Amino acid sequence: MIWIQKQHTLSPRSRGFHLITREVVGALPELKSLSAGLLQVFIQHTSASLTLNENASPEVLLDFETVLDRMVPENMPDLLHTLEGPDDMPAHIKASLMGPSLMLPVQNGRLALGTWQGIYLCEHRNHGGARKLLLTLQGVEA
Amino acid sequence: MIWIQKQHTLSPRSRGFHLITREVVGALPELKSLSAGLLQVFIQHTSASLTLNENASPEVLLDFETVLDRMVPENMPDLLHTLEGPDDMPAHIKASLMGPSLMLPVQNGRLALGTWQGIYLCEHRNHGGARKLLLTLQGVEA
Amino acid sequence: MIWIQKQHTLSPRSRGFHLITREVVGALPELKSLSAGLLQVFIQHTSASLTLNENASPEVLLDFETVLDRMVPENMPDLLHTLEGPDDMPAHIKASLMGPSLMLPVQNGRLALGTWQGIYLCEHRNHGGARKLLLTLQGVEA
Repeated sequence: MIWIQKQHTLSPRSRGFHLITREVVGALPELKSLSAGLLQVFIQHTSASLTLNENASPEVLLDFETVLDRMVPENMPDLLHTLEGPDDMPAHIKASLMGPSLMLPVQNGRLALGTWQGIYLCEHRNHGGARKLLLTLQGVEA
Repeated sequence: MIWIQKQHTLSPRSRGFHLITREVVGALPELKSLSAGLLQVFIQHTSASLTLNENASPEVLLDFETVLDRMVPENMPDLLHTLEGPDDMPAHIKASLMGPSLMLPVQNGRLALGTWQGIYLCEHRNHGGARKLLLTLQGVEA
Repeated sequence: MIWIQKQHTLSPRSRGFHLITREVVGALPELKSLSAGLLQVFIQHTSASLTLNENASPEVLLDFETVLDRMVPENMPDLLHTLEGPDDMPAHIKASLMGPSLMLPVQNGRLALGTWQGIYLCEHRNHGGARKLLLTLQGVEA
């Protein structure tokens, strides 16, 4: 039984959705030694989030931003928390809609994702800066 | 300490929300031997998803479809990824809103769900076909 | 390797979003003994939910309620499940949008949350009553 925990910092990304599967897997060479397990990817922020979605079309990433912006528009009347700018409160809501973590199955030394599944960093702020991930890997060795 | 990983394929369902608790539990007789643990149900797709909700009223399942369709309508202007049909891009968004996996506590050989909680397959495509689940069960024996 | 499972009941809260980080941590003194691990907080209900978000501004909690009410309004036409009141079906939808559980990394005897992250109880009913949590803690000792 193995437990590994690692901090990983993502360099600043523009507002929107970004594929980070390769970067996450690259940070965890220990994945290869597991026959079965689970990897948690956890983001230590409240205005960026993580989701799993289509990894092939760059258009899907752009459409995610379009639709989320429509679902949670900026400058909604009645909002109280506006001090940090019009993108801040919508960013908090979007972050909770997408979620702060992913739990990914590991099988035979690899993430057992579907063919089209990739890890998205969802950057909901205009200038979110670097984002810290905490990776927790557990499982059994081959 | 036990680790079990199993593929389970769901037969094609119509677009909408479907209770699959009984099917998931039936695929894992090993559940009975655990005194405490966690079961992850992970769907290896990006246009279907999983959630936990009301298991008693068939109307709730129908209302989920009505409300999600209203939140993420088809044929939104400005979408780029339209090649696979008007139901495709909304399906990706809905899948991320509901989420690709559930982590369910196991206690005394059973899923420790609330009285009214059931596992939903959320089929967001018009013709989604069969859907692959990966079940990962971990815990300690009685 | 440690596995601990504990029921914890939250006293009734008003409809809206409530910080419960301190209460959850207080219920698990065993956290302190873990060098690395994961804590699952699971709510055994379908009209209340859990999320992780901003822990400093009470305005954020109020804005969450405002925005969620706008995304999933009461008295939508076409809803079928209206028997339990106009707040019931929206509560089910909101519960699935936020999610029924959180998986929180544990490091050096503490929850490894970001500076601004706190655990929210999301009470979606007008009179939800007491809410049952099941806490599942696993990990390795120092």
